[in-house]
Amino acid sequence: MRKKDRQQAPPSGDSARDKLLEATSQLMIERDTLDITLSEIAERAQVNAGLVHYYFRGKEGLLFALIDRDVAPGVSELSSLVNMDLPPIQKMVVHLTGIIRAYYRNPYLNRLITAMTRDGRRDRVSRVLTELLIPLLKAHTIILESGFEAGVFRKIDPMLFYFTVIGAVDSMYSNRFSLRALVGAERVSEELHQANEKHLINLIMRGILVDGAPYRLL
Amino acid sequence: MRKKDRQQAPPSGDSARDKLLEATSQLMIERDTLDITLSEIAERAQVNAGLVHYYFRGKEGLLFALIDRDVAPGVSELSSLVNMDLPPIQKMVVHLTGIIRAYYRNPYLNRLITAMTRDGRRDRVSRVLTELLIPLLKAHTIILESGFEAGVFRKIDPMLFYFTVIGAVDSMYSNRFSLRALVGAERVSEELHQANEKHLINLIMRGILVDGAPYRLL
Repeated sequence: MRKKDRQQAPPSGDSARDKLLEATSQLMIERDTLDITLSEIAERAQVNAGLVHYYFRGKEGLLFALIDRDVAPGVSELSSLVNMDLPPIQKMVVHLTGIIRAYYRNPYLNRLITAMTRDGRRDRVSRVLTELLIPLLKAHTIILESGFEAGVFRKIDPMLFYFTVIGAVDSMYSNRFSLRALVGAERVSEELHQANEKHLINLIMRGILVDGAPYRLL
Repeated sequence: MRKKDRQQAPPSGDSARDKLLEATSQLMIERDTLDITLSEIAERAQVNAGLVHYYFRGKEGLLFALIDRDVAPGVSELSSLVNMDLPPIQKMVVHLTGIIRAYYRNPYLNRLITAMTRDGRRDRVSRVLTELLIPLLKAHTIILESGFEAGVFRKIDPMLFYFTVIGAVDSMYSNRFSLRALVGAERVSEELHQANEKHLINLIMRGILVDGAPYRLL
């Protein structure tokens, strides 16, 4: 879809398109909701509202393009990571770091994906499945198995691991109420994010390692 | 609030009140949304819609009463657990088991709490804080510290731990889309729940333990 949009783009390039995506992202973060109107988005992006239809054919297309923007680079890095000649422990650490940073940058990710698939429309569901969920689960399966074979990971069910990781990582970044109550802030600061990244990676890594595996706490 | 409602209840007892709560819970689980009307709830409960106003003074009261029903017993058990003469490892296992089972029974919990606090109304926020969030965080703090002092837990930040646990536990039970996609089911079966409970407790416990701590995998 992205390619196609690009082919149709006017000579002025992608800047209006990128501005619309960035405005959507910012507004969803600021307001802690996906309920943003197209005219609010156009106004924030300082572009003509008609361009939303030109580039994305409406809000659904815009939101999918945002998922593409936020997630696709990570998913393609992930498949190269899986094929790299690295020990399973390092692979898993790199992978977890990537997921945590994606949620830090885009705390609305889970909510966006839930909203896009809630109605069960097959075309939407199959996009999210093939572009996102299945590549992630596949990567988990391969890394967990190679670590088990290398004798450094316990036997871990990749599907249960998928749910655990996505939930544990998403939690602080998307839970505005608890964040406000416990931290007194509207957003996770860079400092808190760094502490959380270390905490999460240490907890999850030690959670899957066998005794004596060569892992140094971050 | 519950007590007060009870005092006002007619001689027929609480059964209509309980039916309304249970109908709300069931409908939210079945439809995977909090958007259920009062008349749908009354119809499912087979009671007169006017009783919602009688018992709860409207939907907000009904939803808070549901939080009370679902969460209050666990929170009060938690404070007795914290004071029990048990080793920190066992305390934490019992505590995690309680949280996991609460989400299994009531997968809408996080969403319900988010919805009730989204508008930032002080009375709602302070109820959720004092009845739920602060007791949980306090229990985490005490159990984590006693385990650290006993030399069995690593030094773990209770606030980061709170977010990790709530997110990791909530994940499978509330994420209908991924569940449907990965498991092919609308709800977590008893068998899958049991596997997930073991997986989560083992991962989180090993995640916080020091090397050589006396913990046997479930």
